[in-house]
Amino acid sequence: MAEAAHSSSEVGRDRDRIVNLSDGVFAIAITLLILDIRVPDIPETLVAGELPGQLLSLWPKYLGYFLSFAVISTFWVIHHSIFRPITDYDRPLLYLNFLFLMLVAFVPFPTSLLGEYGDHQLPVAVYAATLAVGRLLLTAIHWYSTRDGRLLGEAQDPRTVRFFLIRGLTIPAIFLLSIGISFFSVSAAVSSWLVMLGVDAVIVRRRLSQ
Amino acid sequence: MAEAAHSSSEVGRDRDRIVNLSDGVFAIAITLLILDIRVPDIPETLVAGELPGQLLSLWPKYLGYFLSFAVISTFWVIHHSIFRPITDYDRPLLYLNFLFLMLVAFVPFPTSLLGEYGDHQLPVAVYAATLAVGRLLLTAIHWYSTRDGRLLGEAQDPRTVRFFLIRGLTIPAIFLLSIGISFFSVSAAVSSWLVMLGVDAVIVRRRLSQ
Amino acid sequence: MAEAAHSSSEVGRDRDRIVNLSDGVFAIAITLLILDIRVPDIPETLVAGELPGQLLSLWPKYLGYFLSFAVISTFWVIHHSIFRPITDYDRPLLYLNFLFLMLVAFVPFPTSLLGEYGDHQLPVAVYAATLAVGRLLLTAIHWYSTRDGRLLGEAQDPRTVRFFLIRGLTIPAIFLLSIGISFFSVSAAVSSWLVMLGVDAVIVRRRLSQ
Amino acid sequence: MAEAAHSSSEVGRDRDRIVNLSDGVFAIAITLLILDIRVPDIPETLVAGELPGQLLSLWPKYLGYFLSFAVISTFWVIHHSIFRPITDYDRPLLYLNFLFLMLVAFVPFPTSLLGEYGDHQLPVAVYAATLAVGRLLLTAIHWYSTRDGRLLGEAQDPRTVRFFLIRGLTIPAIFLLSIGISFFSVSAAVSSWLVMLGVDAVIVRRRLSQ
Repeated sequence: MAEAAHSSSEVGRDRDRIVNLSDGVFAIAITLLILDIRVPDIPETLVAGELPGQLLSLWPKYLGYFLSFAVISTFWVIHHSIFRPITDYDRPLLYLNFLFLMLVAFVPFPTSLLGEYGDHQLPVAVYAATLAVGRLLLTAIHWYSTRDGRLLGEAQDPRTVRFFLIRGLTIPAIFLLSIGISFFSVSAAVSSWLVMLGVDAVIVRRRLSQ
Repeated sequence: MAEAAHSSSEVGRDRDRIVNLSDGVFAIAITLLILDIRVPDIPETLVAGELPGQLLSLWPKYLGYFLSFAVISTFWVIHHSIFRPITDYDRPLLYLNFLFLMLVAFVPFPTSLLGEYGDHQLPVAVYAATLAVGRLLLTAIHWYSTRDGRLLGEAQDPRTVRFFLIRGLTIPAIFLLSIGISFFSVSAAVSSWLVMLGVDAVIVRRRLSQ
Repeated sequence: MAEAAHSSSEVGRDRDRIVNLSDGVFAIAITLLILDIRVPDIPETLVAGELPGQLLSLWPKYLGYFLSFAVISTFWVIHHSIFRPITDYDRPLLYLNFLFLMLVAFVPFPTSLLGEYGDHQLPVAVYAATLAVGRLLLTAIHWYSTRDGRLLGEAQDPRTVRFFLIRGLTIPAIFLLSIGISFFSVSAAVSSWLVMLGVDAVIVRRRLSQ
Repeated sequence: MAEAAHSSSEVGRDRDRIVNLSDGVFAIAITLLILDIRVPDIPETLVAGELPGQLLSLWPKYLGYFLSFAVISTFWVIHHSIFRPITDYDRPLLYLNFLFLMLVAFVPFPTSLLGEYGDHQLPVAVYAATLAVGRLLLTAIHWYSTRDGRLLGEAQDPRTVRFFLIRGLTIPAIFLLSIGISFFSVSAAVSSWLVMLGVDAVIVRRRLSQ
């Protein structure tokens, strides 16, 4: 191993640089979401009458903001839990993480699509697919980093690893299935995502921090 | 406690990652504010005559920039003071912090609204409500983190905690009451916010650093 | 001193959080500059003929990008040199630093103004004033932090401090005087800024790192 | 040496601040790319029919997003490998790094150009030139930092240094030559860039981490 030539503190600094870059992308993606909510343009004489209604009619944008904030936060919590035991890294981990960050930085686009055309099928499907791919990439990072314990400070219990592999494949599948729910109700589909995200973050954190 | 299994330096690194993500959101929200001040579009032959007047007429935008910079800075100072003694964290703290960051990242929207329609009632009320909710979430983070001392390196004096709980409920109330002031004068309401923010930051820092 | 109650490593961590927030603002302000250079909108049939000319005609935007990158970089180098010996902080330092960050985050606006109307007097004056105020705030931070050595790990030589106070007042004055040069030639004024920034960064670093 | 007066931990902290600023610029440049993909504007009655086609017709934007994400990621990996052994820094290194960051922050502009007019020659040439200049600046940083070992914790093998100098001049040349390929096929040129970036990152990491 080439990395073995380095002292562990140097490797730790390297790993920290990956985590810092990731946190930078998380922080920016989460903050750029607000750029999609634009102040309505109303002629001066009509402001008093029309502003309240126009601000209320932005509700799909507010919902998209809240939803994507919850999505990126949850991804951050899971990412955080996965990287906590990682003490070393190699090229595949680096590339898997970059693919994942590419997905995180992409989130503002499906959010904007959902905020604009949320009453149609396609934006819901695009958003669900984004969620599924993002979650799958997290599963891939976790699976890869625990594969032979080489990148971990301490090996993880194989049952925990298997448990997460199964979960990490089930949840993306559920996100994709939610496209079906959206045929009946878009808000039911969105609610199902929020529930899944919440459950997911709780279980990942509980198991991985044992 | 699951976290107890980790060495204190690992927990410290985790807590640092939360603080770093928060600082990233603060830094971006504060810097995105400038995107709301747009260079006026003037035909080339009229620039010499019209540019000075048009730049001056942007003053509500400059004021909004200054105000929201002051708001986010003050929130940062209070957040900073609250997190200083925190050495551990758990899920509710994480979620409260994410809710607070969602509010911080939201600030550019009411700022833009105030800069565009600052002479109307509604934008002032929206801005005041944003201030109140942001301050309440800081109160909630402080209250939660000091609740039983479990997340602190060293327990805080109960009188200090009670003092901040009372203040942290009073100040949001004053922000909401300022909506009343705005019926007489919007600039008086904005000035009252700046005074409150200044007083707030000074007192929080003084008491929490004792 | 309230801060004296904390161990030096805690104070160091606090100081690092201020520096990290500042670096975040620097990094974002510097990167947002590119948003001002927009791809020209040309009908498909005319692209081949018009794109080269339209890209060339964006040269004031490229110049503004380069200039403001140089300005923010130089401010970062000076900020860096000033904060290096600082080991503690107090409220006035915090507020001076926030005022300075407000100025750094503001730079994209005069840059945009200069790129749009750079052949007029007013944008040059606004840009020069921005440079002068930014440099003055750095002078204020340095002056305050060295005033009685309380915030420094090691007291600075009084001659160095006086030398920087004089320089730190002279340079902003020269930036303001450059408005006069701009009556003859805007590019001469811009060149004078670049020369001053270069000289400034070199001298500050050399003296402060002794 | 002025820096010699500082303890090595202080110098390390300074070096870390340069790396942090760089990572901030990387993270923001990579995340701003998404702002170039805009949701199409379609009248409500036509959404169901037109949205799928319009989303598909954005494919040059998606490709540009993926390409530039790969470019900035690769630059980050090389930058990371170059800075790993650096323990000290001086002014030229600082300025070379700022020039490189100016190039990284510039990437969204040629990306947008390529996404808009990717079937023309000029955007391909501009993009290839951006790649070549960025890679040359990395070569310059590596060459400068290893020149006499003064900035490294441990001197690098002269053969490794020479190997990278040759590679670091060859690869930019190939990027420029790819402009020729683009006369036959733009997608062949883009593919050649992706191959070169992949090969480059792999070899740099392998050799520099030995």
